[in-house]
Amino acid sequence: MHSVRFTAETSSDGVVERDFLVGEIPGVLWAPVTGADHAPIVLLGHNGGMHRKAPGLRARALHTAATWGFTVVAIDAPGHGDRPRTDEDEQARLEIRDAVTAGDTQRFAAASTRFMASFAEQAVSEWRATLDALQALPQIGPDAPVGYGGGIAMGTAIGVRLTAAEPRITAAIFGGAVPVDEPVITAARQITVPVQFLLPWDDEHVDRSSGLALFDAFASAEKTLHANPGDHRTVRWVGLDEAFLPRHLSRV
Amino acid sequence: MHSVRFTAETSSDGVVERDFLVGEIPGVLWAPVTGADHAPIVLLGHNGGMHRKAPGLRARALHTAATWGFTVVAIDAPGHGDRPRTDEDEQARLEIRDAVTAGDTQRFAAASTRFMASFAEQAVSEWRATLDALQALPQIGPDAPVGYGGGIAMGTAIGVRLTAAEPRITAAIFGGAVPVDEPVITAARQITVPVQFLLPWDDEHVDRSSGLALFDAFASAEKTLHANPGDHRTVRWVGLDEAFLPRHLSRV
Repeated sequence: MHSVRFTAETSSDGVVERDFLVGEIPGVLWAPVTGADHAPIVLLGHNGGMHRKAPGLRARALHTAATWGFTVVAIDAPGHGDRPRTDEDEQARLEIRDAVTAGDTQRFAAASTRFMASFAEQAVSEWRATLDALQALPQIGPDAPVGYGGGIAMGTAIGVRLTAAEPRITAAIFGGAVPVDEPVITAARQITVPVQFLLPWDDEHVDRSSGLALFDAFASAEKTLHANPGDHRTVRWVGLDEAFLPRHLSRV
Repeated sequence: MHSVRFTAETSSDGVVERDFLVGEIPGVLWAPVTGADHAPIVLLGHNGGMHRKAPGLRARALHTAATWGFTVVAIDAPGHGDRPRTDEDEQARLEIRDAVTAGDTQRFAAASTRFMASFAEQAVSEWRATLDALQALPQIGPDAPVGYGGGIAMGTAIGVRLTAAEPRITAAIFGGAVPVDEPVITAARQITVPVQFLLPWDDEHVDRSSGLALFDAFASAEKTLHANPGDHRTVRWVGLDEAFLPRHLSRV
């Protein structure tokens, strides 16, 4: 098992941001400067083409660490961020970009589910190895509750598979804006923890029925669908249940 | 124009409940015992077969008056509660009950939209007359913001038509569990105020696509779909944006 190797650290506004490596996987951890020991852990997935410090993700991480005192973690998915890309990765990205430019939702769905399938299993293993390594740190430990904090899109395609495979995750935020295929639906059917699901109502690249089918598939007794107008770049979430993760992860 | 005639009054836990008549329309008003003058007004619609003091509606009314200090109003829809029923009303109820018993969603949709159409126009006029009469009271006045507080089901079938017709309503809560027909969709397309929409995900009497189509039709820039598992009797709303009406109706 790889251990966590911290490589850099900065802090501002009471939150520390620590870069780390677990083997070859680049990760980042945000936590309150003080009082974070054994705090609940929130895993954040980034979107396709983005990376562990994408601006939207980072803003959410800082907010979550500062507001709830949680430890927030993100890692680069295979072929993303600081990680090497194979020729197949480059080819897949070109196909996805072409499909988007052509406004062809079916081609986009085919290209992006194929791309996802090429590294989904590896991404799940890497998240689990990262969690193993983090829980071996004395300041984190094995008993802190763990949640998956989303994103929509690729963060969901990986997160649904991860949450189905990983009993340590006890609440999860997923979302639409991602074409779903049979492996994702199958994984969703195995999920029984509380789920919050965010659906951009007007995604121009992904058929709305895709997100509705995914939400429908979760076996969770407690699941909430929250939809607002907009596609996954322009959506403005309104009246969102911001206390979803704190309610499920905080030990009172 | 009819004026408000108060007929009975009780109070408990700081909220007064006042029965009234506007012409032949029986209504009820809930308000904080003190400090309610010129407070925002929330109109609550009851479900089919129910009445202005149905237990769920009354609980919501008491909560809204006590928590936010609002004036909450409900009236009996035509053929409901204390109002006379025609032979046609009785016949329509039998048809709806038969369709439910038979588990025939298409027959249920046909029977309930037909029943609704028979008194929808009258119901909208009666709400408007009630609002006129209430605003003529010095303690309410013409300037208090007005919201429509839902219900799902019949409360939505009437409320969508009312909100489309009534410029005094500046925010509205609607929901699914109601078969929608062309008049409801047409009315929804005219609505531009903020909308919160509650969808029971597993209604056994109403096709899910019906609620999704209705949410899609609202022209509002701000609209939120909130779905939880359950049908309209068993749904448990989780993580609901309880501050939706206060945010839009309170004058800060």
